[in-house]
Amino acid sequence: MLDDLLGKIGPLDKASMEAAQTRLDSLTKPLGSLGKLEEIVVKLSGINGCSTPRADNKAVVIMCADNGVVEEGVSSCPKSVTASVTNNFTRGITGINVFTRLTGARTVIVDIGVDADLEYSVILNRKIRKGTWNMAKGPAMTRDEAIVGIQTGIDIIRDLKAEGVNLLGTGEMGIGNTSTSSAISAVLTGSPVEDVVGIGSGLSKMAFQNKIEVIKRAIDVNKPNPDDPIDVLAKVGGFDIAGLTGCFLGAAIYRIPIVIDGFISAVAALLAVRIHPGVRDYMLPSHGSAEPGSKAVMKALNMEPMLNLNMRLGEGTGAALGFQLIDAAIAAYTQMGTFDDANIEQYVPQE
Amino acid sequence: MLDDLLGKIGPLDKASMEAAQTRLDSLTKPLGSLGKLEEIVVKLSGINGCSTPRADNKAVVIMCADNGVVEEGVSSCPKSVTASVTNNFTRGITGINVFTRLTGARTVIVDIGVDADLEYSVILNRKIRKGTWNMAKGPAMTRDEAIVGIQTGIDIIRDLKAEGVNLLGTGEMGIGNTSTSSAISAVLTGSPVEDVVGIGSGLSKMAFQNKIEVIKRAIDVNKPNPDDPIDVLAKVGGFDIAGLTGCFLGAAIYRIPIVIDGFISAVAALLAVRIHPGVRDYMLPSHGSAEPGSKAVMKALNMEPMLNLNMRLGEGTGAALGFQLIDAAIAAYTQMGTFDDANIEQYVPQE
Repeated sequence: MLDDLLGKIGPLDKASMEAAQTRLDSLTKPLGSLGKLEEIVVKLSGINGCSTPRADNKAVVIMCADNGVVEEGVSSCPKSVTASVTNNFTRGITGINVFTRLTGARTVIVDIGVDADLEYSVILNRKIRKGTWNMAKGPAMTRDEAIVGIQTGIDIIRDLKAEGVNLLGTGEMGIGNTSTSSAISAVLTGSPVEDVVGIGSGLSKMAFQNKIEVIKRAIDVNKPNPDDPIDVLAKVGGFDIAGLTGCFLGAAIYRIPIVIDGFISAVAALLAVRIHPGVRDYMLPSHGSAEPGSKAVMKALNMEPMLNLNMRLGEGTGAALGFQLIDAAIAAYTQMGTFDDANIEQYVPQE
Repeated sequence: MLDDLLGKIGPLDKASMEAAQTRLDSLTKPLGSLGKLEEIVVKLSGINGCSTPRADNKAVVIMCADNGVVEEGVSSCPKSVTASVTNNFTRGITGINVFTRLTGARTVIVDIGVDADLEYSVILNRKIRKGTWNMAKGPAMTRDEAIVGIQTGIDIIRDLKAEGVNLLGTGEMGIGNTSTSSAISAVLTGSPVEDVVGIGSGLSKMAFQNKIEVIKRAIDVNKPNPDDPIDVLAKVGGFDIAGLTGCFLGAAIYRIPIVIDGFISAVAALLAVRIHPGVRDYMLPSHGSAEPGSKAVMKALNMEPMLNLNMRLGEGTGAALGFQLIDAAIAAYTQMGTFDDANIEQYVPQE
């Protein structure tokens, strides 16, 4: 069934992209001078199959789940913070609530594996299990569970498509998920573990050293196969990352542009690209996380962040700030005058 | 008189900065996890002398002027484009008009040396002269003119302060001003000319080589003294850059945070810092320009851009996009819940 869906992923629409670039080149500015904002408009046109892209129905999908590896002391936060913050997403007081309000985006809060019974009026109940097993002792989840997690993400995007959402962002909440992300990124990029581990929500030197050891042990115990992304996800990943991987795949299946948040989201994006390389065309980067693994993963994605804010809050906060830049790109594209309007001859370099 | 004004530049208010950081640390997020957004809030508090900073009255000052060096063929645009685009700023169709509308900022359009008679109902007439002399043959302006240009910028900021403006950005329009900026940055940073010259609005390979030669000749003919920023400005600068240098000084004198746009604005920022180092505390970076000189100048300023969009449009467009991030920083600071609100114990790394 997953394979059937992946078969629907097609290329971007070249004609719409060329039409968008032609209009961009007619605007009263030096050719190409809006840089990445021009690339955004062209990509959105290619995804929409239409050279007048819109991004007026935005959603950030926040996958929330617990990680068994937390029992190894990899985080300064108790596990219960996952459930508390997941609840707080419904109260409008978290970072992602503030930043989605800036561009009128909605949040889609998904319990895909929180170790608590939550109130499911706003939060979507897609719980696979109350947290993964401890990856330092064995696989975090079964291969079937990883596939269910991916399918969960795909289905959520299908539903959002039906509701008219035309711009997606990714976010997550899960104590311990910088550890799973570091493990996956070490395996997928071949980087030494030391190079892709950071302090997460804050760690002492000793706890940081322990985190590195735990991640090494998880890789050593499970021996994930780097050529099999679902194996990597199942053995050293998390339900949140599985769901996000599904969101990226779903965005390509249902043709909606999707903005990658920070480190954890980028890891899911890389898993999705390894599952189907055509997915990359549907992705937009946002910020470069302060987590050191972010660099290796962005490089593996062959993407450069637009924002360098040294943030490491997660929740989708960087993606939501990226929405502002996409709004700016569309505003420039639709509101700037052309050379005809401006009574100026086009600036073209003479050879 | 300039010295009297510079004497008013004082340090930031430490107590307000500490109060702001204390509130930031009480918000429901890992300590420091909002990265540069936290630094923005702290800096704004220090400038305002108050830990509840506001940025709800924003202005981008756009200094417009012509450059005599254009007769050397350093630009693909005819000189007349300076006047045309300056006029178009009043018509709402340029990039900066679009981007200032995104955050409700106003534009302050200043003719400080355009080689044309403009309509002065919206545009401020502060014309020093109809463009500088050709710096490849001698000084672009007299030392007195450079000081008048600086004073012009300072006075505009004084007037905006009186009107309640609480966030500034810088912009410019002037065909040939990447050449003057490259010349100044080579002299002030000691970089080889080749490393700080770009294609501006677009250049063929041959014209690019000519641009490098012209800038080298301008430095060779004028021998600007790197230890005397006003000498550098007068000999190889422009009226737009003089006015912007005054804006940066004025922002510090009148205590208003000021966002640096791209390459040309950053060059003026560096001149201002060389005139009075205390000015740096009042500045905020925005984007890293695609012009290669931008890197050397940002390094000399000891600043990192927040946005990497590969833009090279000028006009203040990067600064206006920076305003969005400042709004986001203030929104997080004022709207996020505290740990008390969130029913979570603060995440503090255990030693």
